[in-house]
Amino acid sequence: MNPDLQKERAGASFNPELLTNVLDGSPENTRRRREIENLILNDPDFQHENLNFLSRSQRYEVAVKKSAIMVQKMRKFGIADPAEIMWFKKLHLVNFVEPVGLNYSMFIPTLLNQGTTAQQEKWLHSSKGLEIIGTYAQTEMGHGTHLRGLETTATYDPETQEFILNSPTVTSIKWWPGGLGKTSNHAIVLAQLFTQGKCYGLHAFIVPIRELGTHKPLPGITVGDIGPKFGYDEMDNGYLKMDNYRIPRENMLMKHAQVKPDGTYVKPLNNKLTYGTMVFIRSFLVGESARSLSKACTIAVRYSAVRHQSEINPGEPEPQILDYQTQQYKLFPLLATAYAFQFVGAYMKETYLRINEDIGHGDLSELPELHALTAGLKAFTSWTTNTAIEACRMACGGHGYSHCSGLPNIYVTFTPTCTFEGDNTVMMLQTARFLMKSYDQVHSGKLVCGMVSYLNDLPSQRIQPQQVAVWPTMVDINSPDSLTEAYKLRAARLVEIAAKNLQTEVIHRKSKEVAWNLTSIDLVRASEAHCHYVVVKLFTEKVLQIQEKSIQAVLRRLCLLYSLYGISQNAGDFLQGSIMTESQITQVNGRIKELLTAIRPDAVALVDAFDFQDVTLGSVLGRYDGNVYENLFEWAKKSPLNKTEVHESYKHLKSLQSKL
Amino acid sequence: MNPDLQKERAGASFNPELLTNVLDGSPENTRRRREIENLILNDPDFQHENLNFLSRSQRYEVAVKKSAIMVQKMRKFGIADPAEIMWFKKLHLVNFVEPVGLNYSMFIPTLLNQGTTAQQEKWLHSSKGLEIIGTYAQTEMGHGTHLRGLETTATYDPETQEFILNSPTVTSIKWWPGGLGKTSNHAIVLAQLFTQGKCYGLHAFIVPIRELGTHKPLPGITVGDIGPKFGYDEMDNGYLKMDNYRIPRENMLMKHAQVKPDGTYVKPLNNKLTYGTMVFIRSFLVGESARSLSKACTIAVRYSAVRHQSEINPGEPEPQILDYQTQQYKLFPLLATAYAFQFVGAYMKETYLRINEDIGHGDLSELPELHALTAGLKAFTSWTTNTAIEACRMACGGHGYSHCSGLPNIYVTFTPTCTFEGDNTVMMLQTARFLMKSYDQVHSGKLVCGMVSYLNDLPSQRIQPQQVAVWPTMVDINSPDSLTEAYKLRAARLVEIAAKNLQTEVIHRKSKEVAWNLTSIDLVRASEAHCHYVVVKLFTEKVLQIQEKSIQAVLRRLCLLYSLYGISQNAGDFLQGSIMTESQITQVNGRIKELLTAIRPDAVALVDAFDFQDVTLGSVLGRYDGNVYENLFEWAKKSPLNKTEVHESYKHLKSLQSKL
Repeated sequence: MNPDLQKERAGASFNPELLTNVLDGSPENTRRRREIENLILNDPDFQHENLNFLSRSQRYEVAVKKSAIMVQKMRKFGIADPAEIMWFKKLHLVNFVEPVGLNYSMFIPTLLNQGTTAQQEKWLHSSKGLEIIGTYAQTEMGHGTHLRGLETTATYDPETQEFILNSPTVTSIKWWPGGLGKTSNHAIVLAQLFTQGKCYGLHAFIVPIRELGTHKPLPGITVGDIGPKFGYDEMDNGYLKMDNYRIPRENMLMKHAQVKPDGTYVKPLNNKLTYGTMVFIRSFLVGESARSLSKACTIAVRYSAVRHQSEINPGEPEPQILDYQTQQYKLFPLLATAYAFQFVGAYMKETYLRINEDIGHGDLSELPELHALTAGLKAFTSWTTNTAIEACRMACGGHGYSHCSGLPNIYVTFTPTCTFEGDNTVMMLQTARFLMKSYDQVHSGKLVCGMVSYLNDLPSQRIQPQQVAVWPTMVDINSPDSLTEAYKLRAARLVEIAAKNLQTEVIHRKSKEVAWNLTSIDLVRASEAHCHYVVVKLFTEKVLQIQEKSIQAVLRRLCLLYSLYGISQNAGDFLQGSIMTESQITQVNGRIKELLTAIRPDAVALVDAFDFQDVTLGSVLGRYDGNVYENLFEWAKKSPLNKTEVHESYKHLKSLQSKL
Repeated sequence: MNPDLQKERAGASFNPELLTNVLDGSPENTRRRREIENLILNDPDFQHENLNFLSRSQRYEVAVKKSAIMVQKMRKFGIADPAEIMWFKKLHLVNFVEPVGLNYSMFIPTLLNQGTTAQQEKWLHSSKGLEIIGTYAQTEMGHGTHLRGLETTATYDPETQEFILNSPTVTSIKWWPGGLGKTSNHAIVLAQLFTQGKCYGLHAFIVPIRELGTHKPLPGITVGDIGPKFGYDEMDNGYLKMDNYRIPRENMLMKHAQVKPDGTYVKPLNNKLTYGTMVFIRSFLVGESARSLSKACTIAVRYSAVRHQSEINPGEPEPQILDYQTQQYKLFPLLATAYAFQFVGAYMKETYLRINEDIGHGDLSELPELHALTAGLKAFTSWTTNTAIEACRMACGGHGYSHCSGLPNIYVTFTPTCTFEGDNTVMMLQTARFLMKSYDQVHSGKLVCGMVSYLNDLPSQRIQPQQVAVWPTMVDINSPDSLTEAYKLRAARLVEIAAKNLQTEVIHRKSKEVAWNLTSIDLVRASEAHCHYVVVKLFTEKVLQIQEKSIQAVLRRLCLLYSLYGISQNAGDFLQGSIMTESQITQVNGRIKELLTAIRPDAVALVDAFDFQDVTLGSVLGRYDGNVYENLFEWAKKSPLNKTEVHESYKHLKSLQSKL
């Protein structure tokens, strides 16, 4: 093992295995996760080329191959539980994405949720066996966020009992669906349904796009890859253009709405349950933020323990860069954030399962808050993680810029999370809508419950303004509970400012919608403060649940650092509401430095506890063992440019020399 | 032209051509720049493949070819002035880098600065003609920032009158030099000089690495490409390992220090002028930040004018996304920043030239401040730009993630600027060292001048603390001058806090160096505040110099937005020092919204004024003309994955179908 890492591990104040068990949920979960991971690690079929050395076409090819093998292996090993599938896939994929993934994550689930029994009988078996490879085509070149704006049409022709699908404009071309470009032979297409001369809005249709057997695009279908992107090299995100393309009536998914053979439209019963899928995916993305940030922290912290540079005391050997206060200040708040998001991710998963069970029993009461919370937390955690991954990369200096660090790939694979499944700004405004509704409710004398219950206290603050002056003395910067209160007050204040600014705009503007737009900066700020409060609150509560003292102690430090760092970065918010005083902010900055020093000896153990296998990190810098520099040299020698001693291009140079 | 852009242009309050002239320095400069740009635009030799569709090896090959042609053409066209070379290169390169670039930017200048006349005679002609292709090898795998830590040795052997070069460890392998991997046949190598049993520190040596004619690595030399990176695909950043590799005594650059044939070392006369090159490159990088950010803003603002999505008023057509307040709040402060940095870049260039002339006359008095200022501003502008480019990319939604937007390439090409030519954190600490020195000077009763002269006012503030209470009423949020004062006070306060915390640590710690490390968070904050003040000050001064009223008016709005946005984002700093009151901060937030509305009609004209040719942007989304979506579809069809109807990988899928 690397001697620097060995020394770090020996000096930790706790046993990382116990913390790993906390993160996994139980020692049994840890055991089972490793068992599944080892299936892949020991399987020669899963050893693959270093993707960094391949062209995009080669990467795509490797991904299709592995993606297909994976399906086979999961069946063989009996891996079916969603968490287990995730463990299996994550280790296998190492930051890459699978072209046939959407067949399982979108095509089949949509068929199950929206298809009739007959439709499921017809398509389910062959799509599970990859004879049908399906994807889900919703987004169009000109339309993402605004679903009502989608232009693709499906017009029913009662004479032939077919739907005629059309992409009437260039903006209506389906754009982005994963696996659409080259891999899929079917797509579930979202289109505006027209029948008997009337538009009934978006409905889902099963559309064959390539011929089974030859895989050639069918007549009337124009399909292909949308071109290279920042990342997702392995994924053939595709386009789909349909010209008077006919499909049988039975290809409309008819579990809810229906079109009768004569063209009569039958409305769906009210179903809020499609809502559920969106909530599920977004709550899953909160966990994804945690995992991506944990990976980036693991690499940056390990490298900072191994890298020696410059000097603190003249004449002494070069110190580990982890000993520089500026490096600690870059990394430890992010490490604290990674832990915060891990616990928030676990909470979201539990909450989703609980509320989903309630929904099963017909109780939809908690759905609006869950919907608002997942939207906001998806945005809050993904924005934070996005910035943080790049901060980790840049904290690794020059080597962070090389693909040897693994960090560029983690970033480009993660960053679309800020845009897909609901653009983050739009998500924040959805949360804001819930906050404004809750505020109005309180204002009209009703109580609200759940995470927004702090709004119930607002009116009293307004009635007794002198109470505000009492707060500052009450914040104890060493108490996570007290800091949670401070975040609560900040959220309450920013929600109130947004609500009041919105009211003012409503009075002056021609419409509520214009007023909403002209208050949206305040609304986003309010949502961010609300989400920040929720994260601090959940982290604080989690720390209190930990029994093992050594683990509780180290998590308590991280929780304090997370909360105090947020206050320091947003000092204006805490000063403005008179939540804290100037001298308290100064104390916060001092306390942060103490916490950095206190966390320093545990830093490597804290990233070890995330328990990523080397292969999962896809990083030379973040590897457990050996000499990081020797590994780096070995890696570089494999660069494709090094396959020949003299590169082809030398002849261009040579031919020019005489002319210069 | 695109109808949305046409409408925007018709609605602008000023003529962008006049603003372009301001940015170029004069109408004559604008004319000449365009003349040079047109040389390339109309030259068939410079039309090249879309790099996004090529593999790294192909990109490298294209780059070498073009890079060599470029040298030839510049001679032909008589382009020799540094600014003109830049115009020529920038348009030609479209965010890519040239493998033979270091021959001209580092090898030849070092030869000129540090080589004797005889050495120049020997190597200059053939390196100008690319017979010798040189690079500059300083950084090692284990050593970047800390030059004294470099391990490569050059040991003088008086018997053969040769230097023996060695890479004694894996960490000593030269790592990163551009063009080293495959392109160069010579390198200027920085190595620890040993002669007569003693080490004399770093010196520069001309080292042949490949055989002229065959281009094969010479015996004793191990050289190659360091592997794929986040960006710089076209550049063969390389490694170099030397094993008892002998070069003649004459290959040590001996203009300053010398080694006599018998091995006697002759010390250089004190020369601070090598200092100058560093200052030059860093001040150039400030301009690079401005250009990269301007490009990103151009693409994001144009796309936001063309993209229609969702609704503000129900029932109305989808608005341009530029009409959303959240979108304006994302982009307009960045646009204001781009203008701020353009003017700071121009100021740095002028100042460098002026001080360089002083140095020529033996006057070194302003060099320390210039050095401190360039270090800090390099860090400040590059960090800001780095974040801002990604903000522009994400403001373009999904399409921003595609290489069609051009934004991923702008980002990956720019981001190393935060690390190279001095890691940003180290740069900020260098500025801090100057600030602390200036503070101590004032404290001991001496006056300081230049940008830090505000420190002269500090003692008086300490003597009359009641004066602090006077400030808040004095900040006029509509006056750029008054806001500059506010930034000055913030800088003064943070410099003072850092100085006092440093003093406190010095008392408690074993050494000054440990104290410095334990204050470094405060020191970086002080430097940032200082740089922020300088940017606000220079922008404000520039606006006052503009004669043309319509241009002054629009720049004044941008200047106000830049200053107020900075206050809003750092509200804590302005509240804590009692520089501003809570109600003023509330006013600032309100005023920002008004400015967004006021800037909205000029947004497209403001990016037009940067006057980037479509080809320079390398972007489908940022193009001037036509239908952006049709252009996008045409672009995507050229994706290499679309070269075949059915991809190779389909057979893997097919073979698996039976097994599932």
